[in-house]
Amino acid sequence: MGILVQKFGGTSVATADLVRRAAARAIRAREAGNHVAVVVSARGDTTDDLLALAGEITDRPDPRELDQLISTGEQISIALVAMAIHTQGCGAISFTGGQVGLLTEPVHTKARIQRVNAKRIHDEFAKGNIVIVAGFQGVDANQNVTTLGRGGSDTTAVALAAALGADVCEIYTDVAGVFSADPRIVPTARKMDEIAYDEMLEMASLGAGVMHSRAVEFGKKYHIPIHVRSSLTDEPGTMIVEEVNRMEAITVRGAALVKDLAKVTICGVPDKPGVAARIFHEIASANIVVDDIIQNTSREGTTDLSFTVAAAELRAIMDTARRIASDLGARETIADDQVSKVSVVGIGMRSHTGVAERMFKALADAGVNIQMISTSEIKISCIIDRASGEKALRVVHDAFGLGGQTP
Amino acid sequence: MGILVQKFGGTSVATADLVRRAAARAIRAREAGNHVAVVVSARGDTTDDLLALAGEITDRPDPRELDQLISTGEQISIALVAMAIHTQGCGAISFTGGQVGLLTEPVHTKARIQRVNAKRIHDEFAKGNIVIVAGFQGVDANQNVTTLGRGGSDTTAVALAAALGADVCEIYTDVAGVFSADPRIVPTARKMDEIAYDEMLEMASLGAGVMHSRAVEFGKKYHIPIHVRSSLTDEPGTMIVEEVNRMEAITVRGAALVKDLAKVTICGVPDKPGVAARIFHEIASANIVVDDIIQNTSREGTTDLSFTVAAAELRAIMDTARRIASDLGARETIADDQVSKVSVVGIGMRSHTGVAERMFKALADAGVNIQMISTSEIKISCIIDRASGEKALRVVHDAFGLGGQTP
Repeated sequence: MGILVQKFGGTSVATADLVRRAAARAIRAREAGNHVAVVVSARGDTTDDLLALAGEITDRPDPRELDQLISTGEQISIALVAMAIHTQGCGAISFTGGQVGLLTEPVHTKARIQRVNAKRIHDEFAKGNIVIVAGFQGVDANQNVTTLGRGGSDTTAVALAAALGADVCEIYTDVAGVFSADPRIVPTARKMDEIAYDEMLEMASLGAGVMHSRAVEFGKKYHIPIHVRSSLTDEPGTMIVEEVNRMEAITVRGAALVKDLAKVTICGVPDKPGVAARIFHEIASANIVVDDIIQNTSREGTTDLSFTVAAAELRAIMDTARRIASDLGARETIADDQVSKVSVVGIGMRSHTGVAERMFKALADAGVNIQMISTSEIKISCIIDRASGEKALRVVHDAFGLGGQTP
Repeated sequence: MGILVQKFGGTSVATADLVRRAAARAIRAREAGNHVAVVVSARGDTTDDLLALAGEITDRPDPRELDQLISTGEQISIALVAMAIHTQGCGAISFTGGQVGLLTEPVHTKARIQRVNAKRIHDEFAKGNIVIVAGFQGVDANQNVTTLGRGGSDTTAVALAAALGADVCEIYTDVAGVFSADPRIVPTARKMDEIAYDEMLEMASLGAGVMHSRAVEFGKKYHIPIHVRSSLTDEPGTMIVEEVNRMEAITVRGAALVKDLAKVTICGVPDKPGVAARIFHEIASANIVVDDIIQNTSREGTTDLSFTVAAAELRAIMDTARRIASDLGARETIADDQVSKVSVVGIGMRSHTGVAERMFKALADAGVNIQMISTSEIKISCIIDRASGEKALRVVHDAFGLGGQTP
C-alpha cells in the first residue's frame, strides 16, 4: 500500500462542515488503497483566541507556557477530525506531537524537529486506522511542549512524510496550486504542474506565499514530493519535486512581487573591513529582518550601502541606521518607503544567458526605472517604484511567456 | 519545608483576575515556607464549549477522542496560572497529566489513577518552582489521554498530595467549608472545623456537595488531610481528617437533604431468591442510578420492594419497573415523584443510642410523616413528603444542637 500524508490548514477545518470535508477526503485516499496520515492546524481563530487569553495575564508570557497554551489549538482540531472520520464509518486515531514522538530541540516558539517516532503510526496503519497528527507542535526530550513557529504545520507534514517513507505529502490550501505569478495581479498567470524545490524556495522568499520555506527545505532534504493543491476541488495542484534535466529547458518558471518594501541607503560609508558586519549586527540586534543587501564598488575610499526591509519596519530601523552612520562618519542616510521588488525565478537560468537582459528590457519598454538589482543563481530581482509594481510584474511575466498554456 | 497541594476549581480561575488571585495565594503559601503544587480545573464554561464543538460533529463521540478534546481545557488553565505566577515574580512550571506521569488505567471518561510520578515535581520544587498540574486528566501506559470523570480535579489533587507526601491538600471552593447543613436552608447551620472521612463520604452521598466522594475516599486511603476552604477569604475552612476518639463524643455531625427524589414501590413481589437481583439488574441495564433500596418483611409469600431515584429519572424507570412487575406477577407498581430524603450523619452514632428516636421525635413534633427509613452504621435517612423537606431539615438539625457555636 502507498503511504500518503495530507495536511489541512486552519481555514480548512474552521467549521464543522469543513472538518467533515477534510475527513471525507482522508477516507477517499484510504479507500483508494493508501495508508493515510493527516496533519491538522488549529482551527480558524483558535490560536488568536488563545493568545488573547495570555494577553489578559501578561504582555510577556513565558515561552514554555505560551507553547503549552497554544498547542491546545491543534489538539482540539485533531480530536474533531478523528470524530468526523468515525462518523463516516472509518477507523481513526488522533495524536498530539508528544504522543506521536515528534521530538524537537528544547527551544520554545520556534523549535526544529529532531526526530519522529514512526512506529506508533505504522502500528495504527496496520490496524487500518487513519492517523491524525497535530501540526505545529512537538515535545523536547523532557516532554515539554514545543512549537515550530511560522509554517510549522507544513513542516510537521513534510517531516512526517519523511519519517513514514510516504510517497507524497499533500498540502491542502485555499488556492489551486503554485502560480507563475499572483493571479490577482496577473490575470494570465498559469498554475504550474511542477516546480523544483529550489525554485519554490526562491518563490516563497519572494512573496509567492502558498508554502513556508522551512517545509520546502525539509522536503528537499528528504526527497519528499510535495503536492500543493486546493481543498475545494479534486483537481491536481502543483508538485514540488527534485530538479530534473528537462526543467532546465524552461529558463524562467515564475515571477513574483514583494509590494511593501522600504529601501535604506547609508551614503559615504568608509570602505574598510568589518563595516558591513557592524552595521548588520546592530540591525539584527534590533530584531529587524533585512531583505536584500546591495553594496556597489567604492569610489574615493567610501561606498554606498543599501538594504531593503519591510516598509512597516522602516521607522524602527531609521534610528539605528542614523546612529550607526554617525558613528562610522558616513555622509548621510536616506530612505524610501515606496518601493517594491519584482523578481523572476527559474533553475534554467543557470544554463541560459540573456535572462537579465530580457527582464531589464521588458521593464524599460514599460517605462519602469530600476533602482537596484540583485541576483542569485536562479533568480533576478529589481527594486522599483511601488506605483509601478503591478505593471512591472505583468510585463515581466509576459516577457518570459509564462501566461496561458504550458510554454 | 512543608509540602502543600492547592486545588482551584473552574469558577476560581474563570477570569484573568481570578487567575491572578489563585496565583497570589499559591505564592503566599510558597513564601510561608512550603513547596506548593497547584491543581487547576478547566476555566468556567470551557469544558461545555469543547463538548459543544464535538456535538457539532457527532452525538456519540469516541471516548478516546472526547478525552483528547476536553483535556485541553485544563491545559489552558495551567498555562495561564503559571504565567500569572511569573508576572508576580515567582518561578512556576505547568504540567499536563501526561507530563507529570499521572498514569491511569486505559479507560476513557472515568479512568482511575494508578500511579503518579512524583520525581518530576520534586525536581521542580528543588529549583524553587511552584508546580501547576492539570486536574481531571492523566494518560494510560500508551500516552493516550484519559479523564477521571466527575470530581476528577479533586481526585487529582488528593492523589498528588499522596504521591508527594504532602502535609495537606487544600480544596478551594466558593463556600467557606463543610456545614452542619445547607446554610441556604438552615440559617443556624455551622461551619465545621473538622469532619472524619467517613462522615464526609456519607454527607457527600447525601447531597451535601462541596467535594466528590472519590477524592474523599482517596484521602482516607492515603491518610491525606483535606482542607476544604473558601477561595475568597483567608479564613480556615473544614479539615477532613482521620477519625479520632474525641469525635465520637459528637453523635451527629451534620444533617442533609436530598430534595428531588421519586419513590417507586413494586407491591406483592413473590418473596423468593433472585427476585431483587433480577429487578436491579434490569434497572442498571437501563443506566439508571438507584439511591436507596428498602424491602420489608414479607407477608403471605409476597413482599413490597421500594427504591428511590432522582425525580428526573422517574419517567425513564417506570416502563422498566412495570414490565418487571408484570413478568414477576407482582400486584402493582406505584410511584411518587414528590419525596425528599432527610438524613443525619455522625460516627458517634456507633457508640451512642437514641439517635434514631430523637430524629423521629423531632419529625413527629413538626408534623412530618416518615414514609420510609434506611440506616447505615453512621447515618439515618428518612423519606418524607417533599413539601416538608426544608422544615424537616431544620427541625432535625436543631434537635441535635448542630446550630450556632460548637456543641
